Amino acid sequence: MSPSRVPEGEERGWLVPIGGAEEKRNDGLILGRFVQLCGGADADIVVIPTASQLADSGPRYEQVFTSLGAGRVSVIDFDTRRDCHERNRIDRISQASGIFFTGGNQLRISTLLGGTPVAQAIRAGNAHGVHVGGTSAGAAILSQHMIAFGEEGGSPTANSVRLAPGLGLTNRFVIDQHFRQRDRLGRLLAALAYNPYAVGIGLDEDTAAFIGPDDNLEVVGSGAVTVVDAGQLQFSSMDQVEDDEPVCLLGLTVHILVAGATFNLRTRKASAGTLAPHKKLPSKKQH
Amino acid sequence: MSPSRVPEGEERGWLVPIGGAEEKRNDGLILGRFVQLCGGADADIVVIPTASQLADSGPRYEQVFTSLGAGRVSVIDFDTRRDCHERNRIDRISQASGIFFTGGNQLRISTLLGGTPVAQAIRAGNAHGVHVGGTSAGAAILSQHMIAFGEEGGSPTANSVRLAPGLGLTNRFVIDQHFRQRDRLGRLLAALAYNPYAVGIGLDEDTAAFIGPDDNLEVVGSGAVTVVDAGQLQFSSMDQVEDDEPVCLLGLTVHILVAGATFNLRTRKASAGTLAPHKKLPSKKQH
Repeated sequence: MSPSRVPEGEERGWLVPIGGAEEKRNDGLILGRFVQLCGGADADIVVIPTASQLADSGPRYEQVFTSLGAGRVSVIDFDTRRDCHERNRIDRISQASGIFFTGGNQLRISTLLGGTPVAQAIRAGNAHGVHVGGTSAGAAILSQHMIAFGEEGGSPTANSVRLAPGLGLTNRFVIDQHFRQRDRLGRLLAALAYNPYAVGIGLDEDTAAFIGPDDNLEVVGSGAVTVVDAGQLQFSSMDQVEDDEPVCLLGLTVHILVAGATFNLRTRKASAGTLAPHKKLPSKKQH
Repeated sequence: MSPSRVPEGEERGWLVPIGGAEEKRNDGLILGRFVQLCGGADADIVVIPTASQLADSGPRYEQVFTSLGAGRVSVIDFDTRRDCHERNRIDRISQASGIFFTGGNQLRISTLLGGTPVAQAIRAGNAHGVHVGGTSAGAAILSQHMIAFGEEGGSPTANSVRLAPGLGLTNRFVIDQHFRQRDRLGRLLAALAYNPYAVGIGLDEDTAAFIGPDDNLEVVGSGAVTVVDAGQLQFSSMDQVEDDEPVCLLGLTVHILVAGATFNLRTRKASAGTLAPHKKLPSKKQH
């Protein structure tokens, strides 16, 4: 699936992939900023807990978003593909100012929602300015090509990743989550080795990429976002290797971004943002 | 410690860091190539098992190198710093055509050998053409700045790595080993974040970097070598972060090299080597 066209005079909504395990207290920076983005007291957020098999996933986010000041929060789940054709649920999604996917298994979202009016409504909504966020599996699902599952480990091997079509809200990046915590660089690199056009985004837990309509990505949270830009790639051996063989990749550009740092997905320029230039502190001891 | 000067008309010996767990059978590619490099039937290899606390580490490599065709193999261990001043052992090391460090704890090598005549003899030998290899801890010890220990995980944090002075056979790179298997990208990046002048080399298990006197590195073995070149680094926040905070690093160049691929530590150019250009196979099915 490809992103819907943005109508003239309108602006695409933000995409907010989160690496999982985000802070859910009242001072939760990431979820709090998502609520503000969606309008704060005027926010109308739909939580889609379809990735999860746990009954309390939806209500939990409903409670968190409400406690963070969201005006209206609803949980809409989908257990069958037929559910995704139901007028009431589609209408409810079409009214939202923000849509949020919980964690779980991204293949549950893609197998249930893929190709249905609900997926279309979400894509159309995002093109009209609706903000779409998600954590863990809910982050993976956002892009056109998503990592369905894969192996852990730092070096890419031929079979270390399985790609599947995602929701298609963007084709500029491929996401991986729990990045530092589950050692997923290898599978993200393997994903890029197939076709290096997209930017790889590895999200640590409790860390989010807030991606605006200008395709500028800003990091929020306590961890890092690893950006892998294969735009200058010299060579990939993915077409030559088999099974467990490691893949040769020459000329990757990598940025480790932390809170406040930015990366522009169009120009592919990284910036330390609020971190640089170094501020001289008049009274702090130097060591 | 810095590398000894190479006398005029002579050539520095090769450095052969190995990522650990290398194949030790008769067809062991890496150790076999090390034996050939050291002269095959004329090879005179000294095994230094000091990193290991296990009594059979030395004899095991003695047997492997002998079975791979090395003319002479001796095990020389050091239990105290006083041992490192003993004339007989120093003379034996000075006669070798190759020196090999087993795995274990790299701090055992540095605390016992550091600053002693044995360390001097190894540095001088390498400058005169003696090849020096090592696996795991024995690989880490080779460079001027070595990773003593650190944490696992893909993103660098302020305290994810502890550096210590190594043997100083080169100052061009910093090595980490068991790279894919123990998720060590974060600590290698943290090492570079302190001072980005060196190249970071992450060695997978059963994988070696054969580094010639021309500072050209070639990969041998079944895994990958991750080369992190911070030469174009735009920004490091290592001076600003504390403890568990992630470090911001912008503009790293990364190459994933597999067997046959090369990286020149002087020019910092990577090549797919024997992997590229793609060969057209006249009879093989395309898919």
